[in-house]
Amino acid sequence: MSEVGFVTMGKTSGGEEVKSIGVGMLGYAFMGKAHSNAYKTLAYMTWPPPLMPQLVAIAGRNEEAVAEAARRYGFAEYKTDWKALVADDRVELFDNAGPNNLHAEPTIAAAEAGKHVICEKPLGRDADESYETWQRVQAAGVKHMCAFNYRFVPAVRLAHQIISSGELGDIQHFRGAYLQEWGTTEGDIWRFQKDLAGSGSLGDLGAHVIDLARYLVGEIDEVGAMTQTFIPGRDVDDAVESVVRFGNGAVGTIEASRFCPGRKNAFTWEINGSKGSLAFDLERLNELQYSEGNEGFRTVLVSEADHPFWEHWWPQGHMIGWEHSFVHELHHLLTAIRDDSDVAPHGATFEDGYRAAEICDAMLRSAEQGGRESVTYR
Amino acid sequence: MSEVGFVTMGKTSGGEEVKSIGVGMLGYAFMGKAHSNAYKTLAYMTWPPPLMPQLVAIAGRNEEAVAEAARRYGFAEYKTDWKALVADDRVELFDNAGPNNLHAEPTIAAAEAGKHVICEKPLGRDADESYETWQRVQAAGVKHMCAFNYRFVPAVRLAHQIISSGELGDIQHFRGAYLQEWGTTEGDIWRFQKDLAGSGSLGDLGAHVIDLARYLVGEIDEVGAMTQTFIPGRDVDDAVESVVRFGNGAVGTIEASRFCPGRKNAFTWEINGSKGSLAFDLERLNELQYSEGNEGFRTVLVSEADHPFWEHWWPQGHMIGWEHSFVHELHHLLTAIRDDSDVAPHGATFEDGYRAAEICDAMLRSAEQGGRESVTYR
Amino acid sequence: MSEVGFVTMGKTSGGEEVKSIGVGMLGYAFMGKAHSNAYKTLAYMTWPPPLMPQLVAIAGRNEEAVAEAARRYGFAEYKTDWKALVADDRVELFDNAGPNNLHAEPTIAAAEAGKHVICEKPLGRDADESYETWQRVQAAGVKHMCAFNYRFVPAVRLAHQIISSGELGDIQHFRGAYLQEWGTTEGDIWRFQKDLAGSGSLGDLGAHVIDLARYLVGEIDEVGAMTQTFIPGRDVDDAVESVVRFGNGAVGTIEASRFCPGRKNAFTWEINGSKGSLAFDLERLNELQYSEGNEGFRTVLVSEADHPFWEHWWPQGHMIGWEHSFVHELHHLLTAIRDDSDVAPHGATFEDGYRAAEICDAMLRSAEQGGRESVTYR
Amino acid sequence: MSEVGFVTMGKTSGGEEVKSIGVGMLGYAFMGKAHSNAYKTLAYMTWPPPLMPQLVAIAGRNEEAVAEAARRYGFAEYKTDWKALVADDRVELFDNAGPNNLHAEPTIAAAEAGKHVICEKPLGRDADESYETWQRVQAAGVKHMCAFNYRFVPAVRLAHQIISSGELGDIQHFRGAYLQEWGTTEGDIWRFQKDLAGSGSLGDLGAHVIDLARYLVGEIDEVGAMTQTFIPGRDVDDAVESVVRFGNGAVGTIEASRFCPGRKNAFTWEINGSKGSLAFDLERLNELQYSEGNEGFRTVLVSEADHPFWEHWWPQGHMIGWEHSFVHELHHLLTAIRDDSDVAPHGATFEDGYRAAEICDAMLRSAEQGGRESVTYR
Repeated sequence: MSEVGFVTMGKTSGGEEVKSIGVGMLGYAFMGKAHSNAYKTLAYMTWPPPLMPQLVAIAGRNEEAVAEAARRYGFAEYKTDWKALVADDRVELFDNAGPNNLHAEPTIAAAEAGKHVICEKPLGRDADESYETWQRVQAAGVKHMCAFNYRFVPAVRLAHQIISSGELGDIQHFRGAYLQEWGTTEGDIWRFQKDLAGSGSLGDLGAHVIDLARYLVGEIDEVGAMTQTFIPGRDVDDAVESVVRFGNGAVGTIEASRFCPGRKNAFTWEINGSKGSLAFDLERLNELQYSEGNEGFRTVLVSEADHPFWEHWWPQGHMIGWEHSFVHELHHLLTAIRDDSDVAPHGATFEDGYRAAEICDAMLRSAEQGGRESVTYR
Repeated sequence: MSEVGFVTMGKTSGGEEVKSIGVGMLGYAFMGKAHSNAYKTLAYMTWPPPLMPQLVAIAGRNEEAVAEAARRYGFAEYKTDWKALVADDRVELFDNAGPNNLHAEPTIAAAEAGKHVICEKPLGRDADESYETWQRVQAAGVKHMCAFNYRFVPAVRLAHQIISSGELGDIQHFRGAYLQEWGTTEGDIWRFQKDLAGSGSLGDLGAHVIDLARYLVGEIDEVGAMTQTFIPGRDVDDAVESVVRFGNGAVGTIEASRFCPGRKNAFTWEINGSKGSLAFDLERLNELQYSEGNEGFRTVLVSEADHPFWEHWWPQGHMIGWEHSFVHELHHLLTAIRDDSDVAPHGATFEDGYRAAEICDAMLRSAEQGGRESVTYR
Repeated sequence: MSEVGFVTMGKTSGGEEVKSIGVGMLGYAFMGKAHSNAYKTLAYMTWPPPLMPQLVAIAGRNEEAVAEAARRYGFAEYKTDWKALVADDRVELFDNAGPNNLHAEPTIAAAEAGKHVICEKPLGRDADESYETWQRVQAAGVKHMCAFNYRFVPAVRLAHQIISSGELGDIQHFRGAYLQEWGTTEGDIWRFQKDLAGSGSLGDLGAHVIDLARYLVGEIDEVGAMTQTFIPGRDVDDAVESVVRFGNGAVGTIEASRFCPGRKNAFTWEINGSKGSLAFDLERLNELQYSEGNEGFRTVLVSEADHPFWEHWWPQGHMIGWEHSFVHELHHLLTAIRDDSDVAPHGATFEDGYRAAEICDAMLRSAEQGGRESVTYR
Repeated sequence: MSEVGFVTMGKTSGGEEVKSIGVGMLGYAFMGKAHSNAYKTLAYMTWPPPLMPQLVAIAGRNEEAVAEAARRYGFAEYKTDWKALVADDRVELFDNAGPNNLHAEPTIAAAEAGKHVICEKPLGRDADESYETWQRVQAAGVKHMCAFNYRFVPAVRLAHQIISSGELGDIQHFRGAYLQEWGTTEGDIWRFQKDLAGSGSLGDLGAHVIDLARYLVGEIDEVGAMTQTFIPGRDVDDAVESVVRFGNGAVGTIEASRFCPGRKNAFTWEINGSKGSLAFDLERLNELQYSEGNEGFRTVLVSEADHPFWEHWWPQGHMIGWEHSFVHELHHLLTAIRDDSDVAPHGATFEDGYRAAEICDAMLRSAEQGGRESVTYR
């Protein structure tokens, strides 16, 4: 395990020392921007930060672009080869924000070089790749996190608290869908190519639904799925539909599609328990719908002083955005690194990443073969 | 086929004659109340009515209760045996609002006695019973309608118009769920007993979803389902979850459950086409959500003078209720009887009732056997 | 006071006798249709009805139209002169659904002929006319109701119960607006003419807001208003805006306009108390928004067995419509007539109609003269 | 006017030079945190930034707290006397995030020392103070901005675009309310003290409503207001209610209160024009409700690539938060400084701050004296 550098950042009013941690990042596009913003923001908004991120270097293949990203986000250096990141002793945390086909190898290499790792979801392009990644990183003894960031939306964490407290009783239903509308976009997009992405809407969107289903409800035992590809010639799923059965007896549906006009980023889920229900829509991410007993749904504006993560932010009703989930996620990871504490259960580990991949694979098998598939883990 | 009585009801301002039709009803509970109200209301709100209902007699086994119902709703007589209704020549339309186990035999008998028939959904307790009912009634040459009343909600008919016009482009998704919360109710309820009801949430709620899926999107080719019974000892499904594939390539989910606290009568569906989307929630039945292209969802308050069925009602924005769907439905049936026109496509025929039953059976087979099931018709 | 005819309608299962009451109606347009429907519906849906309405006669000036209305709604006769209604001994309840300029004289005449009276709102075209109507009808000793039907929406009655119980604490705010969009309609419409209507949006829409403010919060002491007429040449207000102070210290706003595109029938109000808040929108009339303490707003779907008026209708979640408010209103009036009980506090009396008119007049004076106006009653 | 320092921050890929600007801040509480976050965020999210903020120093009276704030937000130094900021040549932009009683003197001094200034709203505690501040700062020839940040919410800017384009036709109504619930909070809070705050809910919340009314609709000519103080002994308004008339003939209401349980940060407004309507709720700040003609309200999720400010952020549907309004606001100010362009019309200048104060004063006079008040400017 890598040693955390003891660069004292000065003391806070409480007298606490803040140590630093060197971050090396792979990728500078959508996810690179989101992670970079999160490191920079947590440094002063979650105060004192568990560790103070030092942005050591960012890697990418297009030199002009990666150089610009380094300037923009304040990385001290840029690299055109991720191996240079792995070889850099100043990098203590390797942040893989690259495309799916660049998840496994660099992440494993970084971990085996003693760096903590965070990798964007899906962990691998299939269960095999995900399993291999998990096993080798686990063996390296470093902290690992699969970036299922929606666990770190305040309303989702509040839902977890409500469910864990038993207020919903026995969970009987989960229905989750992640719907977007851009599936007809043309051009050379890696997310539409099986060799690069592994799957289509399933790994991109469905994996998020699967992860929250596992986080909020529990393990999924069985799935029965269909997929559909609307664009001729595309070799990944444009949509996936599945029924699911959980170990605790709950049943429900999981769906992902990029062919839903008007749905910009509609990750919705509803959970029904024997004593109440919860519902959520990512397009209104500051709100949790809560029906206690049969009382009807109350809109909880998740922004009170005692709501999850809210101590970092603003007075009630001053809403936060999608990007803030990454601030909370990386804050959680840095805390785990600082304290040598577990990333789980609130953070997704590589084991969670692997388990989501097994479920994705089971859905694809079911879609192909026509039967329900049991989910089993290695 | 029964002859429509030529009892002139006076002329309207347009000089039109309104003939009467004798109605005999079986059942006086929830559905009996809804149908009775509809006959009485359409007589003056849909003006002039296609035929003027004459409430000849109502049948039920509990004499005190059925006598009270006759007084309440204005039936001229009551009967404690439905066979007396069938034998009554004044009855030209037999309205079966009884429990599922009383659908087939009385309905067939009435049709074979030359009466037009409307039967509550599900048509039969399974596909066999439904098929038999359809075949024999069809052979009798009378008008037949399966009371899938939600086809007659103005927002649903407007959705049908929008889809038929091509404004949504190719339909790619249907996701429908009918969720209620009363599944834990105790007592001797026929809806929880397989011999009386045929199935649980599937026939009661899921059949409505299936019918609207067929009405709005088209035939369903394949299903993959799970069921769950939460209450020990109950022999019907408390919940059903299914993936579905339509003949036109659309895919989606269908779900029904009575175990969703806070969901009072939440029949929701969303349809995504290549050019736009529609969404509906029965708890806000006057509203249709419509995203044209990618523009975001507009709340259409379905109450304009040129909206479906609205010529019978009020100025815009003066909302109607759930019961009004029955007024529209029976108005449609009486029109078909008067004009000897087709009940389909807007009204559900017994063939539609049978087809919904085949899909229900396919879901139950899939749930039991684990594989996806093709839907085939006899 | 008129005697209620003792025509027994048969006994209900409970053995209760239902007596009849002869109804004479003035007007067959929008409100005549709504009231007629209500009499016909309450006769069997509120079972047993307090009194069984006998539709004796309907009056209107256009013979062809009123004859058609009589046929349509089942009035035994029609009259082209309202005086014939007043002179008809079979008429025990005079229902004035005519335009504003026909409120005072026929209503007073009917009352002085010993008939109970219900009159559409606003009671008169101004406070003077309203006061005269109230005084003379009151002196006649009959039951009188001003048809502020929104008091009889289940969500409004539930709000009244919540406020009366003290659950909201001290009421500190009321903000109500009644917004529609049809103000640009052209043609010879009596609602746009001062001599016929008295005022514009104020008497038509604002009077409803004022009445609910009084019903839910209490008497209004002071107003400060502005009016605006957008259509050149029109002699009534197209919009009115007012601040209001209540006797209990609450402050707020009242607004009415017919110039709000997209607002079909948007009568919205919000009440804030020291312990909670309520909010309502007529376009979603089955819902009451309720924030207990600071907990956020819960959507109460007002359709439970123990919710106001719901014993007459359907299982929960099976929504009712705008027209049902009239069923409840007339049921309340018939009960008061049968039992010789008070129309107030849940029903609006002519005193309430007069008081609303004083507030309207105070708003118009304030708008004209520029100062706030105290509301005083004679 | 201060010279912008020519510290080149490196070139972007486009080859542009980014110069720096020294920022001195007064105040480190709620607004200090929001402004600091905005400077830090715009430095990389709005790329390249118009000027690169150099956080020179932050001033406050509590040394321990201000020292901690400097460490937290990365100010190079802290000061316990704001005069030291004014005297610091490195400070080119003076950001006044202090309480209302510290707005005028430090801001004027900074401007007269040649620094650009941004001051939190309300500009002064009354119109006199605001006018004096505006006049002296204007005379100093520096850029000045009054921090009415809600102009910089994407949905608000989009509304401005829609209105400016004429799509709404003539504006006929504005109704705005800013409602919160914390008015019963106890303790020594400067916002509840007249000498420190100037007014209560009016200056704190109502000023925001007034500013957006002016920005979106135009100048307000006349007001008629009431105020109410619910807490005994408090010398500021707990709530203000006002009718307003605009120069263009539109009429409406403006309201502010901190006594609305369940309303966390509910700044809502609706604008009706002759051709359409817009509506907004700050608790759902990413959404704009738009009714084109009479079509019903469409929820525009303001997050498309071509929506205002969105080029800085994320793919569509990935929502931003309240804090982002400050990023856009300061980006706008830095652009005006860099280009020597006007802060108006999209940014509020000190003249806008003064005009809002005149309207607030007119409301207070109206409330006290009982008559409507014309709004006149010096």
